[in-house]
Amino acid sequence: MTKQVQALGTVDATQPLKIMKITRRELQPDDVEMDILYCGICHSDLHQIKNDFGAAHFPMVPGHEIVGRVTAVGSNVTNFKVGDSAAVGCIVDSCGHCPACERDLQQFCEEGTTLSFNSPDKHLGGMTFGGFSKTYACKSDYMLHVPDSLDLAASAPLLCAGITVYSPLKHWQAGPGKVVGILGIGGLGHVAIKIAKAMGSKVVVFTTSQAKVEDAKRLGADDAVLSSDADQMAAYASKVDLIIDTVSAPHDINEYLRLLAIDGTVVLVGLPPKPLEIGAFNVVKGRRSFAGSNIGGIAETQEMLDFCAEHNITADIEMVNADQVNEAFERLEKGDVKYRFVVDMSTL
Amino acid sequence: MTKQVQALGTVDATQPLKIMKITRRELQPDDVEMDILYCGICHSDLHQIKNDFGAAHFPMVPGHEIVGRVTAVGSNVTNFKVGDSAAVGCIVDSCGHCPACERDLQQFCEEGTTLSFNSPDKHLGGMTFGGFSKTYACKSDYMLHVPDSLDLAASAPLLCAGITVYSPLKHWQAGPGKVVGILGIGGLGHVAIKIAKAMGSKVVVFTTSQAKVEDAKRLGADDAVLSSDADQMAAYASKVDLIIDTVSAPHDINEYLRLLAIDGTVVLVGLPPKPLEIGAFNVVKGRRSFAGSNIGGIAETQEMLDFCAEHNITADIEMVNADQVNEAFERLEKGDVKYRFVVDMSTL
Repeated sequence: MTKQVQALGTVDATQPLKIMKITRRELQPDDVEMDILYCGICHSDLHQIKNDFGAAHFPMVPGHEIVGRVTAVGSNVTNFKVGDSAAVGCIVDSCGHCPACERDLQQFCEEGTTLSFNSPDKHLGGMTFGGFSKTYACKSDYMLHVPDSLDLAASAPLLCAGITVYSPLKHWQAGPGKVVGILGIGGLGHVAIKIAKAMGSKVVVFTTSQAKVEDAKRLGADDAVLSSDADQMAAYASKVDLIIDTVSAPHDINEYLRLLAIDGTVVLVGLPPKPLEIGAFNVVKGRRSFAGSNIGGIAETQEMLDFCAEHNITADIEMVNADQVNEAFERLEKGDVKYRFVVDMSTL
Repeated sequence: MTKQVQALGTVDATQPLKIMKITRRELQPDDVEMDILYCGICHSDLHQIKNDFGAAHFPMVPGHEIVGRVTAVGSNVTNFKVGDSAAVGCIVDSCGHCPACERDLQQFCEEGTTLSFNSPDKHLGGMTFGGFSKTYACKSDYMLHVPDSLDLAASAPLLCAGITVYSPLKHWQAGPGKVVGILGIGGLGHVAIKIAKAMGSKVVVFTTSQAKVEDAKRLGADDAVLSSDADQMAAYASKVDLIIDTVSAPHDINEYLRLLAIDGTVVLVGLPPKPLEIGAFNVVKGRRSFAGSNIGGIAETQEMLDFCAEHNITADIEMVNADQVNEAFERLEKGDVKYRFVVDMSTL
């Protein structure tokens, strides 16, 4: 039997979020259902409620950094039990049999990944509703375990910000002996510093903000460079093996390509709205690459949570109540958060 | 004792090539000296004599696809003897001890690679003079063996065009089960088809020219796509593992990024004069990369020559005499060559 639950959503791109009722599906044999305790606020939630990508469907309930506690499991489920802590990230379903899914890269599913919100809902029709709500249900194979040692609220941002930076750090082999640059210190960048450091890399932050130069070291960076300082930048020319570029605003990627050592890679995880210009010489010299990466698969997301537990990594968060969500979105738009808002869903 | 030899060179960027005398160095203990038999004409020779890169020094003798026969060896040389066939490509010296040289990537030598022409000459001062001349001498470690089974004249273009495409095909693991795209069918592209096919890849050519669609298959491509045909392009969307982009003219790289499978790479080996624009979504989706590659190291160049001998690969050439060189440069500028001019240096 479907049920009606409370949620925070919006009815069009110009409206603030308000309390609404949404329908959650009847528990399926493969499903896990949870009460949502906390949900992070990611910049892509902001883009979606404002319809910046032009693909918004309303009413919309955002939220895709979701942690909670299991309240029910379907008859086929063996990997969760009632009372377990659990989490849902960006991906809640995929075809399971295409080449991408077979490689556990569900984010690139050829038949189309089902995302936790604003994505076609195979069960109820319409679109999926996200984590700014009281409950969530999805197949147990897409539900994640939050290790007991992690603070649940501060773990929520790992479900998107964490996996988005963990996946390229792993894929491009951050680790001992490697110099890893982190470009942009926000929700993604601050977690990237912690994870890259825990992997054993030397971590260098590049930022336009003097205040963040200082904060970067507190977060664990070995060095922090003010990108407007040409001398500081020149000191890293051809010395950085991997740069995780979390910046979504327009920026000159060539400055960073020139910092790469031979075979180095700049990996873009943000989505700048305009094309980036790349000078041929900056990649031809040193066999450098400019690449992209998009969240990570389900198995890798679990691996990331386990890695974070092992290294005691969570996000730096500001907790807000349900009635502060619109204010939080306004502050996020101005970059006024250190470094991730998390909504306490018990206040909804 | 230094010696004066005949060469074809130019005294400034507006002049045609004409016969001149240049000085060749006294044979050093580590040197091999050869009589030049053939020298290929590469597009970068044209750029240099016209000072398109702004780094030309005159008088200049171009030519860096050089094959000939050994006439003298220094007292320390053990890997060549008088009468051997031999070749010189782009690189004739490097520091030998920087991290790049230690990895046999002399093209990225941190102290600066000595190129076969228009590069500071450590022995005689001034700049090096290239292969449009009667003799060449360099350290034996930078001289290459041309396997006996290869036609000497048709091998000349392998020294630059060949290694420029072989190196990225090898580095990005072209081979059985891989779909390799070749973008642009000229001096580089036509050799890339042959090498990628010999490596066992499925080879698909992308070209703006209907005539080259047909020629691509003769050269060994499994398929050839007219890039202006949207349907033909769409048929390869997300299906190509590696694209070698040999185009130096402005072109839209996004069209080709969208053809890449997950983890695919477009490798630029040309040097388009203006920056290339890349849409973030085209790399973030599918974890795709845009990379560059620049010729190859000495050991890899020898490996390429041996590979070409094993698979009976040479360039398709038009042989010209010394007095036809200026005409050949004019035709090259118009793209009127199938697919590489080689100068018969016995006619100088």
